[in-house]
Amino acid sequence: MLRPGPRPAHRRGLRRRRRDGPHLRQRARGRRRDRPLTPIEEDAVATAAVNRQYRLAARPVGLPEEGDWDLTEEPVGEPGDGEVLVQVQYVSLDPAMRGWMSEGRSYIAPVAIGEVMRAGGVGRVLASRAGGVAEGDHVSGIFGVQEYAVAPADGVFKVDPQLASLPTYLGTLGMPGMTAYFGLLDIGAAHAGDTVVVSGAAGAVGQVVGQIARIKGCRAVGIAGGAAKCAYLVDELGFDAAVDYKSEDVRRALRGHCPDGIDVYFDNVGGEILDAALTGLARGARVVICGAISQYNATQAPSGPANYMSLLVNRARMEGFVVFDYATRYGEAAREMGGWLASGQLKTREDVAEGLENFPETLLRLFRGENIGKLVLKIA
Amino acid sequence: MLRPGPRPAHRRGLRRRRRDGPHLRQRARGRRRDRPLTPIEEDAVATAAVNRQYRLAARPVGLPEEGDWDLTEEPVGEPGDGEVLVQVQYVSLDPAMRGWMSEGRSYIAPVAIGEVMRAGGVGRVLASRAGGVAEGDHVSGIFGVQEYAVAPADGVFKVDPQLASLPTYLGTLGMPGMTAYFGLLDIGAAHAGDTVVVSGAAGAVGQVVGQIARIKGCRAVGIAGGAAKCAYLVDELGFDAAVDYKSEDVRRALRGHCPDGIDVYFDNVGGEILDAALTGLARGARVVICGAISQYNATQAPSGPANYMSLLVNRARMEGFVVFDYATRYGEAAREMGGWLASGQLKTREDVAEGLENFPETLLRLFRGENIGKLVLKIA
Repeated sequence: MLRPGPRPAHRRGLRRRRRDGPHLRQRARGRRRDRPLTPIEEDAVATAAVNRQYRLAARPVGLPEEGDWDLTEEPVGEPGDGEVLVQVQYVSLDPAMRGWMSEGRSYIAPVAIGEVMRAGGVGRVLASRAGGVAEGDHVSGIFGVQEYAVAPADGVFKVDPQLASLPTYLGTLGMPGMTAYFGLLDIGAAHAGDTVVVSGAAGAVGQVVGQIARIKGCRAVGIAGGAAKCAYLVDELGFDAAVDYKSEDVRRALRGHCPDGIDVYFDNVGGEILDAALTGLARGARVVICGAISQYNATQAPSGPANYMSLLVNRARMEGFVVFDYATRYGEAAREMGGWLASGQLKTREDVAEGLENFPETLLRLFRGENIGKLVLKIA
Repeated sequence: MLRPGPRPAHRRGLRRRRRDGPHLRQRARGRRRDRPLTPIEEDAVATAAVNRQYRLAARPVGLPEEGDWDLTEEPVGEPGDGEVLVQVQYVSLDPAMRGWMSEGRSYIAPVAIGEVMRAGGVGRVLASRAGGVAEGDHVSGIFGVQEYAVAPADGVFKVDPQLASLPTYLGTLGMPGMTAYFGLLDIGAAHAGDTVVVSGAAGAVGQVVGQIARIKGCRAVGIAGGAAKCAYLVDELGFDAAVDYKSEDVRRALRGHCPDGIDVYFDNVGGEILDAALTGLARGARVVICGAISQYNATQAPSGPANYMSLLVNRARMEGFVVFDYATRYGEAAREMGGWLASGQLKTREDVAEGLENFPETLLRLFRGENIGKLVLKIA
């Protein structure tokens, strides 16, 4: 049963399907019935009778369109042994999702056609058939774009809503924060006195990069689109300077703000801004390749960084990384960043949209550069 | 007085000038006459009455043309205090020379219009006014494209023609060899078991890269243009495989020769071959940016490596370097490479053209990919 969405226009062309066939039967077969659900669990599952989900219907060409999605319904699943049932409260919207929608070799398999769209999320455990995670716990994990997720307990992380708001666990204390932390300090090897430039600076990763840079004694310069974002960076987050790529010549502005050159350039966007930053490198600079949001929806082969020979002239290096490789060190980063959050040294901001049915439209806000801070979708 | 050149066609359009004005007067003024030249020195200078030189007349657009050069004559200079007079026997021809001819920021100042073209060289000391270097010694240094050079003694290196031929000191035991050694082992961090791919593999740097890779226990795959070069790499130098970029699909060929991916890619050429190699990287790969000969004469902005996001997917890095930064470690490299040369583990090949007047045409052979091994010009 579909609940009425607040923005019905966005749902035109969207295929809706009720799923109760093979997928569900498979789940039922997979469940080991060696322990009946407790009355609380039965109750929770009964209350949440229907699970709405966004599944990938087609591989997008350019920006994802409504027709690339199926909004499906199926009964809420039941956790098997070692699994938990989670009511997803917030879905994380990340630029990387665009990559997962495409075929082709990457650091992670693409989402298959017909599969629930992969997404990080945070929610409440409704039922657990695993030690260490109890009903009522809040957890984060890869839950997908859906209202309820059955997930292996060893793939979820318990989070404490008293220490930080749930969306923060998808942003500054989640993958984007980890990405900022290890990208800047490990790959970028930033140290006191460095000039650090970050693009996509008002985004989930960028806002953390610039603030950690400041905390570590670096000069932080952010590149973002629009006066509001630039003001936010400097006035609220304490960046030393901001460049508005929509109204300024980025190359010239960077020259002005980085008179001794750029020691670390943390790139979230690729394209012309990467090229502009390459022209301004200091000797021995480190360029951290985190993403290339300007290119993700390109329908032609993206243009590479024409100024890459600046790496030679400046004896510089450009390096890519995938945050999942740092999984064993997340705790270390979470402790340090948690401390900064508690002391007020590190500020965080989330941009919260609401309603599962607004997922396709909200995702596009990322690629239009409309969000400030971490973009999440509240669905419960 | 100009000697007749064997290829007069190449000298059409070449401006010839006799220089005996301010430049010479300045030299004479600069000389401290606190010691007269010895009879041997006087004799040497008298014998070498005229010094012919190639000076940069204009900044080339695209490939350097005859009109971009002035062939000038002036009396042979006299060494001042701390200087030596060298009869240049071999001039080194290097892709980097094209960069030195252009304006714009680089790792070294451009050659000024009217200045003798910068070039490495090796020759015989005719007169010395410095301790540590004696008349009759053989030395290498940055002597320029000319028959005689007056150079500060602390900028020359003594070489031993008994241990290796003079051109070898411009190749495998000179800058190209140093570039190969430090680029592969220091920047590329190659170690036993790695698959190393090098482009421009039959050139001065590339031939050494592949051989050092083999000596260090790596698999070596060379990319070169034409069957003769590929046969040379495999049959004479012991590369494991060679790819002929003129007749093969480089991407596919690399996939075949590097089934587990490329651990180190040493890039001398840039352009499409760099892109092809990027698609074949192994996880944690190192891409060494040594040069980009395919782009040096481009009249449009060069295209960057479109596949640079492979760095992210593969957690790889791309790093540039300038061999001059390793000057304090040249001795270390020379000792190790000298040992390999002596034992026959490391082979070297020079491509020797003759005649100063053939300099402009010979330089172009580099960019046409015509040389196998180190290209030098014998001028005495």
